[in-house]
Amino acid sequence: MAAKEKREFRLLATCEDAVGIVAAVTGCLAEHGGSIVEANQFSDPDTNTFFMRYVIDAESLPFDGAGLEKALQPVTDRFTMNCRIADTAQPHRVLILVSKTSHCLNDLLYRWRTKDMDFEVIGVVSNHDDHRDEVERRGIPYHHIPMPKDPQAKEEGFVETARLIDELNPQTIVLARFMQILPGWMCSRYPGRIINIHHSFLPAFAGARPYHQASERGVKLTGATCHYVTSDLDAGPIIEQDVVRISHHDSLQDIVRLGKDVEKTVLSRGLRYHLEDRVLVHGNKTVVFR
Amino acid sequence: MAAKEKREFRLLATCEDAVGIVAAVTGCLAEHGGSIVEANQFSDPDTNTFFMRYVIDAESLPFDGAGLEKALQPVTDRFTMNCRIADTAQPHRVLILVSKTSHCLNDLLYRWRTKDMDFEVIGVVSNHDDHRDEVERRGIPYHHIPMPKDPQAKEEGFVETARLIDELNPQTIVLARFMQILPGWMCSRYPGRIINIHHSFLPAFAGARPYHQASERGVKLTGATCHYVTSDLDAGPIIEQDVVRISHHDSLQDIVRLGKDVEKTVLSRGLRYHLEDRVLVHGNKTVVFR
Amino acid sequence: MAAKEKREFRLLATCEDAVGIVAAVTGCLAEHGGSIVEANQFSDPDTNTFFMRYVIDAESLPFDGAGLEKALQPVTDRFTMNCRIADTAQPHRVLILVSKTSHCLNDLLYRWRTKDMDFEVIGVVSNHDDHRDEVERRGIPYHHIPMPKDPQAKEEGFVETARLIDELNPQTIVLARFMQILPGWMCSRYPGRIINIHHSFLPAFAGARPYHQASERGVKLTGATCHYVTSDLDAGPIIEQDVVRISHHDSLQDIVRLGKDVEKTVLSRGLRYHLEDRVLVHGNKTVVFR
Amino acid sequence: MAAKEKREFRLLATCEDAVGIVAAVTGCLAEHGGSIVEANQFSDPDTNTFFMRYVIDAESLPFDGAGLEKALQPVTDRFTMNCRIADTAQPHRVLILVSKTSHCLNDLLYRWRTKDMDFEVIGVVSNHDDHRDEVERRGIPYHHIPMPKDPQAKEEGFVETARLIDELNPQTIVLARFMQILPGWMCSRYPGRIINIHHSFLPAFAGARPYHQASERGVKLTGATCHYVTSDLDAGPIIEQDVVRISHHDSLQDIVRLGKDVEKTVLSRGLRYHLEDRVLVHGNKTVVFR
Repeated sequence: MAAKEKREFRLLATCEDAVGIVAAVTGCLAEHGGSIVEANQFSDPDTNTFFMRYVIDAESLPFDGAGLEKALQPVTDRFTMNCRIADTAQPHRVLILVSKTSHCLNDLLYRWRTKDMDFEVIGVVSNHDDHRDEVERRGIPYHHIPMPKDPQAKEEGFVETARLIDELNPQTIVLARFMQILPGWMCSRYPGRIINIHHSFLPAFAGARPYHQASERGVKLTGATCHYVTSDLDAGPIIEQDVVRISHHDSLQDIVRLGKDVEKTVLSRGLRYHLEDRVLVHGNKTVVFR
Repeated sequence: MAAKEKREFRLLATCEDAVGIVAAVTGCLAEHGGSIVEANQFSDPDTNTFFMRYVIDAESLPFDGAGLEKALQPVTDRFTMNCRIADTAQPHRVLILVSKTSHCLNDLLYRWRTKDMDFEVIGVVSNHDDHRDEVERRGIPYHHIPMPKDPQAKEEGFVETARLIDELNPQTIVLARFMQILPGWMCSRYPGRIINIHHSFLPAFAGARPYHQASERGVKLTGATCHYVTSDLDAGPIIEQDVVRISHHDSLQDIVRLGKDVEKTVLSRGLRYHLEDRVLVHGNKTVVFR
Repeated sequence: MAAKEKREFRLLATCEDAVGIVAAVTGCLAEHGGSIVEANQFSDPDTNTFFMRYVIDAESLPFDGAGLEKALQPVTDRFTMNCRIADTAQPHRVLILVSKTSHCLNDLLYRWRTKDMDFEVIGVVSNHDDHRDEVERRGIPYHHIPMPKDPQAKEEGFVETARLIDELNPQTIVLARFMQILPGWMCSRYPGRIINIHHSFLPAFAGARPYHQASERGVKLTGATCHYVTSDLDAGPIIEQDVVRISHHDSLQDIVRLGKDVEKTVLSRGLRYHLEDRVLVHGNKTVVFR
Repeated sequence: MAAKEKREFRLLATCEDAVGIVAAVTGCLAEHGGSIVEANQFSDPDTNTFFMRYVIDAESLPFDGAGLEKALQPVTDRFTMNCRIADTAQPHRVLILVSKTSHCLNDLLYRWRTKDMDFEVIGVVSNHDDHRDEVERRGIPYHHIPMPKDPQAKEEGFVETARLIDELNPQTIVLARFMQILPGWMCSRYPGRIINIHHSFLPAFAGARPYHQASERGVKLTGATCHYVTSDLDAGPIIEQDVVRISHHDSLQDIVRLGKDVEKTVLSRGLRYHLEDRVLVHGNKTVVFR
């Protein structure tokens, strides 16, 4: 599950379940000498949907990703597969959006610069200018796009952000505690590409100020949720969640502090699954092959 | 924290916070030679409320619970304390309500008969007759009160249940997976005396079929919540919660099964805190001295 | 992952890793119309060993387990596979050994009688007569085999136990808090068939009185370990582990109590994996396909 | 539990348990108008030892820490108390020792600069020069003291380190993954002042390469332990521990990665308890008032 040093192809496929899928895929791979490094399958009995993730040693195949795709064409056609091949030789380009609170940003940048996770940070966008020094000294471009309270000015901020995204073309946009609600058009523009960390155990305490809500309700655990962003606020497919115990003697300030540790752990875990192509979206749920 | 063999008084008190409360209480106890076994205090800065729980070796005092209350009178008057003294010599009388699913009932009965928890089961009430043998062979009275779908007949079932409660006069009523929504008048009749186990991490998935809701939402953890019942459905003060990890390959049946283990653990923990007088209700929240 | 209602074959196989294994196995299954319900593979890069578990809908195949084995023969020969096929139509026969403490026994019997786990309890053996009533009233034979302190008499107890095992021929022997150290000859006699629950997070606190050891060391978590028994005390392959938080205010009695809840959860989880043929032993470690 | 903005005195006391201790202490505090913000007591029945931690609003008292100590003198004399008063106006001075791996260092520096924890980093010492830039740009002195393999040269490194400690006079020395075994004389020189993070769930896998040991043993959870350093390797009083689930598909590299997240969480939690004077050492165990 760690960052790989050997070049690998990751084959992700979804289709209606049927007899013979794995045989056909692995038969095709074996025919070309493909050495399987990791293999996961899952059949959802409720929807009769089949999911697979195969990691193949790139050296063992006589062709590149496009060649593999072509070689698999008869199989993917036969089973009407929704298929995608990721090549680990191409680094995953990530854009990070952040507001004032920087614990997730700091955690991601540390993982990036120590190669704990395998991705490229192509930029950081913020509605505040506070993190410029920390970001730029790592050689990463910093984009300060203010988000004023005035609705029209805020909308302009989002348009500017979208323009930047389109220009930089990241594969993934991470909302690392970006405290602005993206407009619906923006969520729809990058389907499956925006990952958010919400500071509650969703669906509990969706929306604004979840720690205040948690403190008021008197829950005994506080949590965090990493999920794909859809136009439905805090309701997109969940990738990862976790919780930490709290008690009556924890003030709101304590809950925030304890929650931060969960947030950064959950975001980094969820993002890692995504970067390693372990996540397949299935309706509003996810299949996560760990 | 275990079932005590020595007789003890448990002093629970709440009042507005002020300088000198602990000094006054412990001064009074020390004056009479009272040996403090356990002591917990908590000041809530938001509401300026003070909470305390003191466990005193009964042998060390020259009087019984009523005497202790009298001795403390000047102190409780001075600080306008809401004060209660529990005497461990008097066993805690519990009535259990249960529907079809019996894992919580089985767990509680096992803890009761092996003295893992210190309480007396004075009866089991169920809208099904299924558990009669298991219960009666332990020498516990079993009351089958049907709960038909017809609203009026169901209401009669609740009236009958309330009549039984009033007759048996349990200190605590445990809803050990009792799949019936108590009418408002019943919730209000026994304030702070009804404990429920809800099979979700509240406030997520309140109401009916929480495991179905959890499965549909695609959460990565499922949980259980032990709380006091109020007339507001699944919204009473929370005593204890916990969660267990689930994943895409867990069917609804798997989630139910994994959840059951959490339910019985959370219920037994929450009930233990309650039986050991560790829980003080504060608005819609709890202070749990562990 | 739950007890299956449909008849299934579970194919477990281990061999040296090579290109084409999955293709060969699934090709053979597909040829006969075999519908794969669950599939797991794992390649251990350190030892170049391949592990697989395939669950196949028995109805989809034109033969029974022996027929499946025969059909797979060319494949298993080609890859020199260590292969085993379990048929869910044949219930798994389990013998439970227990001493005084019965929380694990109670938990297993409850799961058995409510069909939470799919197995047959063919008997309970104990060095005490305490649980006879509880066991016999469920229609399960109870065998009281005393284990005196005198070494020779104790050895006779083990010989008697082995004789009983050989007669009853259980597939699995569960030590559900059986507080006797099995002699080496007995461990060797039933390789991979004896499952123990040890009341510590192994390898910490192996041997006698682990809770005393934990209390003395001042650890902040206490745990339990479900493992296969080998002649090396508390050192066999680990199937499952878990922990619970403890603190300075927990007495030894509290630690024992908190630990019991972990023990029964860990034993039931580990045993379930074993009963569902999810566990493959690999040297002194396990592969657990969940 | 968060970093306090108001000045507070923290009174830590240990003595033989007796009737009247709390009454005497709180009586004395009340006499001078002392407002108690937090209060914890614990009586260990096994050793008849009493522990207390009281946090007092400094503004509410007519004197400073020395004055409070003097005012309490009759009480501490009467009960032969081991007493200590910490004044939150004086920042806690910490020296960090680190080797190559910097995740704990990065985490601590982030908490320090965002004031997540209330302490002053007076320097970083390392046997490598790798972290100089990261440390110095925060305005913190960096001391590179090589630790060659040659025993005598290494001993010189420790002498140099001790000389630096004596000069800088930190209250606490944190071994934030400092991969050198301190000589006995050094451990004894700073009793209760050196805090280590060990990358296993002690006492399992003490000593060198715990992750290798864990991987080889096939445990299903990996952990970390924050403890005070004594001359007995990895056997000092434990402050905090936690674990994370691992499985057969986690390589050694994965275990290291997953473990790192636990290490930094456990170290920061343990250090926080220590900095907030929540930890009282009791023989080889700790009382941690949370």
